[in-house]
Amino acid sequence: MKRRDLLIGTAGLAATSQIKAANKEVYKWKMVTTWPPNFPGLGTGAMGMAKNIEKASGGRIKIKVFAGGELVPAFESFDFVSSGGAEMGHGAAYYWRGKSEATQVFTTLPFGLNAMELNGWLYYGGGMELYRELYEPFNLRPYPAGNSGCQMGGWFKKPINSIEDLQGLKMRIPGFGGEVLRRNGGTPVAMPGSEIFTALQTGTIDAAEWIGPYNDLTFGFHKVAKHYYYPGWHEGGPALECIVNKEAYEELPEDLQTIIDIAASATNDTMLAEFVARNAFSLKQIEMMEDIKIAPFPKDVMDAFKQKAEEIIAEIITKDPVFAKIYKSFSEYKNTVEKWTKISEYALLQNRYE
Amino acid sequence: MKRRDLLIGTAGLAATSQIKAANKEVYKWKMVTTWPPNFPGLGTGAMGMAKNIEKASGGRIKIKVFAGGELVPAFESFDFVSSGGAEMGHGAAYYWRGKSEATQVFTTLPFGLNAMELNGWLYYGGGMELYRELYEPFNLRPYPAGNSGCQMGGWFKKPINSIEDLQGLKMRIPGFGGEVLRRNGGTPVAMPGSEIFTALQTGTIDAAEWIGPYNDLTFGFHKVAKHYYYPGWHEGGPALECIVNKEAYEELPEDLQTIIDIAASATNDTMLAEFVARNAFSLKQIEMMEDIKIAPFPKDVMDAFKQKAEEIIAEIITKDPVFAKIYKSFSEYKNTVEKWTKISEYALLQNRYE
Repeated sequence: MKRRDLLIGTAGLAATSQIKAANKEVYKWKMVTTWPPNFPGLGTGAMGMAKNIEKASGGRIKIKVFAGGELVPAFESFDFVSSGGAEMGHGAAYYWRGKSEATQVFTTLPFGLNAMELNGWLYYGGGMELYRELYEPFNLRPYPAGNSGCQMGGWFKKPINSIEDLQGLKMRIPGFGGEVLRRNGGTPVAMPGSEIFTALQTGTIDAAEWIGPYNDLTFGFHKVAKHYYYPGWHEGGPALECIVNKEAYEELPEDLQTIIDIAASATNDTMLAEFVARNAFSLKQIEMMEDIKIAPFPKDVMDAFKQKAEEIIAEIITKDPVFAKIYKSFSEYKNTVEKWTKISEYALLQNRYE
Repeated sequence: MKRRDLLIGTAGLAATSQIKAANKEVYKWKMVTTWPPNFPGLGTGAMGMAKNIEKASGGRIKIKVFAGGELVPAFESFDFVSSGGAEMGHGAAYYWRGKSEATQVFTTLPFGLNAMELNGWLYYGGGMELYRELYEPFNLRPYPAGNSGCQMGGWFKKPINSIEDLQGLKMRIPGFGGEVLRRNGGTPVAMPGSEIFTALQTGTIDAAEWIGPYNDLTFGFHKVAKHYYYPGWHEGGPALECIVNKEAYEELPEDLQTIIDIAASATNDTMLAEFVARNAFSLKQIEMMEDIKIAPFPKDVMDAFKQKAEEIIAEIITKDPVFAKIYKSFSEYKNTVEKWTKISEYALLQNRYE
């Protein structure tokens, strides 16, 4: 509850609420995103969400969407929305690990949950309550608003036959995944998507992960690296995020608040579907390229990745009580949902593929 | 376009549109569902959708939700919404196979797609266009509005060790799945969920499939049948459906139309998440029951189910050109998306479980 409401008291609240309901004011909002202009799937999904809100509100909320860097640099959007510079943002929670390691749990963890499972935790397993609590001090209301589904492991100039091949490997892989690579002898490099192609071409890097077939094909990585590895162990179903400035949200009448809420959920629905379909269509094109080898990471490489991922999580838990609390909820749910997925989705896919 | 709009012409249309936008009329709608009162997951999901529409519209659409049988019998809701008796309905497309065999493709087919894959086809693979075309003559606008995720294979009083054990088996399994059982020597029985417990208890039937752990546990089937088989080969990710009377939809101003559209999509998002989480929680309870055996169908039984399912689909294709057209789009997409799922979701689950 806002301080103002506390002062007004209960009777006043009812009156305020009536004023809000009658409020036909036009709210001119800004949405800052972490995505390049018109970025397929992620940026276009955020733009679609803004458009849905405008249409559903009959123009009472007008949202101007900014690509990363247009109004503020991409990775400053969290602070910018927090301070009220913009009313909304769209990006991914794990970009804010500098604020809190725990943000990563709301996007994805290596060897974590798939998209369906993650939504189950968020909406019905206690995740949303923890997510809101974590963002409360930042004056932000967070939503899951999209998911890329399982990503790919990346493009490599040389084949990866064993852990030995990771030694000294310079790979564009940011964040948690990068740290896992480093602990396995590689050299993680952080760079924006727009620089990957040239870095691969000139040999500045030996490998790069980006997203999946749909976005990777657009960037043309298949022209400069011929080994495409799966699966995306580091991002098995990463959620995208919408953040709304809390005061901006609370100033809205209840109908417009609900429109924001369901528009985020609708984006969560359609964006995942878009990635599933378009990744499939793009993979079909890549499979027809005779010089491209699509292969799974060897078992020992996957095991090594997993071991280091677990090691890193254990370290963060000892250092960061907020992460520890959120991870406890996440991992208890994970232990439970894994048993269900095994006898449902997985059993049916086993039947399909074996 | 409506006949009235055609008569008014383009200039008139713009004026009509302005009138619509200024329209503060309250629409009192009815939603008839195929679900028992407050039915967990499915019925409560439909009720949540109605509530979201009311709240997002600031009370300009008020929706009274009816359980199956309260206003019309459950399986008459299609005709009732079609004729305008109610403005909306919630159920599942495959209930209307008497109208068209093709409706089943929009819910699920045995050995078909999982929920994520199905949404991909519907939203980005041409499915929605075919879905709308199919419902056009019935004066209905259809939406995917929820998904139960992969279901269970059912409760059996005796173990199923081979195809021999299906001979003469009386099982509650409706529709397409029932026909597959019949062609494998069993006797499918159709009965509403509310009658299953007693039928199992008295031995009227030997087995029954219902939904999954969450709903099955509530009905207490574990008290009268001890063998719980997986996976739900006949329903690997069935979509639920919202239908809206076309004229009722077209009379709404554009903002309220958008609210209906995104509320359906939000329900599609949250209902699947609810089933994933709650099925997992309920499975955990069932796993602790020492007298319950949870087991996979034997490989030869699954193969026999699959073979008959394919046989039935081939027969419908030769008889029903509408089904054939829709199934062509579905199966071409399926062939494509299967390759993507195999190297993404499936590869990661394989790593998790093996």
